[in-house]
Amino acid sequence: MTYKITALPGDGIGPEIIQGSLEILEILSNKFNFDVEIETKDFGGIAIDKHGDPLPKDTLESCKNSDAILLGAVGGPNWTDPKNRPEHGLLGIRKALKLFANIRPTIVTESTAHLSPLKESIVKDTDFIIVRELTGGLYFGEPKYFDENQAVDTLTYTVDEITRIAHVAFQLAEKRNKKVTSVDKENVLSSSKLWRATLDNVSKSYPDVELNHLLVDACSMHLITNPKQFDVIVTENLFGDILSDEASVIPGSLGLSPSASFGESGPSLYEPIHGSAPDIAGQNKANPSGMLLSLAMCLRESLNQPECAQHLEDIVFSTINEGITTKDLGGNKSTSEVFETIKKSI
Amino acid sequence: MTYKITALPGDGIGPEIIQGSLEILEILSNKFNFDVEIETKDFGGIAIDKHGDPLPKDTLESCKNSDAILLGAVGGPNWTDPKNRPEHGLLGIRKALKLFANIRPTIVTESTAHLSPLKESIVKDTDFIIVRELTGGLYFGEPKYFDENQAVDTLTYTVDEITRIAHVAFQLAEKRNKKVTSVDKENVLSSSKLWRATLDNVSKSYPDVELNHLLVDACSMHLITNPKQFDVIVTENLFGDILSDEASVIPGSLGLSPSASFGESGPSLYEPIHGSAPDIAGQNKANPSGMLLSLAMCLRESLNQPECAQHLEDIVFSTINEGITTKDLGGNKSTSEVFETIKKSI
Ligand SMILES: CC(C)[C@H](C(=O)O)[C@@H](O)C(=O)O
Ligand SMILES: CC(C)[C@H](C(=O)O)[C@@H](O)C(=O)O
Repeated sequence: MTYKITALPGDGIGPEIIQGSLEILEILSNKFNFDVEIETKDFGGIAIDKHGDPLPKDTLESCKNSDAILLGAVGGPNWTDPKNRPEHGLLGIRKALKLFANIRPTIVTESTAHLSPLKESIVKDTDFIIVRELTGGLYFGEPKYFDENQAVDTLTYTVDEITRIAHVAFQLAEKRNKKVTSVDKENVLSSSKLWRATLDNVSKSYPDVELNHLLVDACSMHLITNPKQFDVIVTENLFGDILSDEASVIPGSLGLSPSASFGESGPSLYEPIHGSAPDIAGQNKANPSGMLLSLAMCLRESLNQPECAQHLEDIVFSTINEGITTKDLGGNKSTSEVFETIKKSI
Repeated sequence: MTYKITALPGDGIGPEIIQGSLEILEILSNKFNFDVEIETKDFGGIAIDKHGDPLPKDTLESCKNSDAILLGAVGGPNWTDPKNRPEHGLLGIRKALKLFANIRPTIVTESTAHLSPLKESIVKDTDFIIVRELTGGLYFGEPKYFDENQAVDTLTYTVDEITRIAHVAFQLAEKRNKKVTSVDKENVLSSSKLWRATLDNVSKSYPDVELNHLLVDACSMHLITNPKQFDVIVTENLFGDILSDEASVIPGSLGLSPSASFGESGPSLYEPIHGSAPDIAGQNKANPSGMLLSLAMCLRESLNQPECAQHLEDIVFSTINEGITTKDLGGNKSTSEVFETIKKSI
């Protein structure tokens, strides 16, 4: 069987980190005996430049026909038309492929704890996952418009949408420490009242898993004061956007964190959580760890290669432990030097 | 002239911190030669218990007829009816008095920097203010409902609402370090597009003040990685709720931070940002600093007593510097012992 992968290098540092990662995927597929066929497509700002559209039809078709999508990064200061942004490609692909579940692990390892902006005693042994609903809420609700005098956005959720993402969280927690923290603003929002009631309902099917509710403002504090308390956090789209970015700085470098977006069926999308970092683009300085750990998630979840995924994760972390890292992690290596070291360790 | 103050002790630790603060207000008014007349009213959970309403008419009338309102805290686990919550009193008073501007300073002093969950090198010299819009957005927009199948909340803003809060931020920045950071989610929300355009417009009237725009997800990171960069942050209601709570843990104890809510005219409301802390209520353990610093804001802004306000702030901070603090700040004093020390220093 041959796995089809669509690669979307995108903008900024995206192309550099995708290229090396695809080379590593080739080497891994040889070692672990599986076949991959890779199609690389324009997406984001570069697709606006070339085709006037951040998500050209041809790109979307390729994504739809693939087993998984690897995305570098999108966006940058070059694209300023509010009606045609690179980010619209991201929203478009989430909607088109119904990628409703965004998964972001936050792990603090022994060797990186000192890099955290938080005190080591607070972050040591932090290991949680944020499950963010990705196709509902304020991002897509209608009406949504503005004129000279006023603006309206609409936050909608159906019970089905909430139920679906709740199951993802509980199923993840079952395989982990059996604790789900559901985050809402139940004291103010109607959607949060429905959210909370639905979570309570779904939790009945998972008697082993403990469910807690936390207000979003309180959660933004707890992430800083006591991140170790969390196992699986589940929340709606915009809260998930804010909280997962807040969480992403805990490990000390944005460059470390992977993410995955799943639909009910069809291909999943994997991308590092850092952005396109236009200030260092093309300079061979980008930290490829987040991309490689996203590739590991892809290997495990979409390509059915758990051993291969584990092997890659082990190598990425041991490379970091040995200090063979880019500047953001305190090292002095270039992107390609890190890639070469990792290739040799496979 | 006699200043009329309505005191709303509220729930949990509210009554303890209000009582001592009112005694201190008496002493200060004698020393600085101004007259205060204090009316104490039921509000929040206790008002639900006594009158079936978190904001009884009589309480609201007293607030309307006062020069300023001092609020302790509301809420607690005793009030579980989703249709009649203590917090509804808070939303009701904001709406009734048109308290559209919530001001929350975050200051890290030399003597408390070590208490921060963030590394001292990151937080030292942090000194910024969050200006949160308090009567618009998702909190009050209609339609807002839920049934068995779905839920809707509505985020609305008018240009006038945005303009009004923008002026508050720019005017504050003019008296400080002349830097406004406006926080939105302009790449997704229509309301944020109007927000950003309006901020750009208002900024033309303040040529001395630098305006930056920051996405809310990025802001949640920057608050942790580099809080020193901020002077005045201005944002919409829900973003302000999340970000100001995130900011509130930076100084190392929630017990330190005051807040003020202003309308266009009429009385302002002053409250510490910590909640009702039901777990320590009635135990003489609550840190009164946040309430006292809120009283200092009240003295400066509503009672026209800048020297008195400064005197109180100096005493609060020097008491902390001397280690005469409650447990949350690393000391071993009770609430009343801290109050007594402060009274003696006046
Ligand atoms: C680029 C933007 C639209 C996007 C989002 O808000 O979802 C990004 O911040 C993310 O978290 O993937
Ligand atoms: C109690 C709640 C309604 C309130 C809010 O969300 O505004 C509180 O969190 C605050 O920040 O004052």
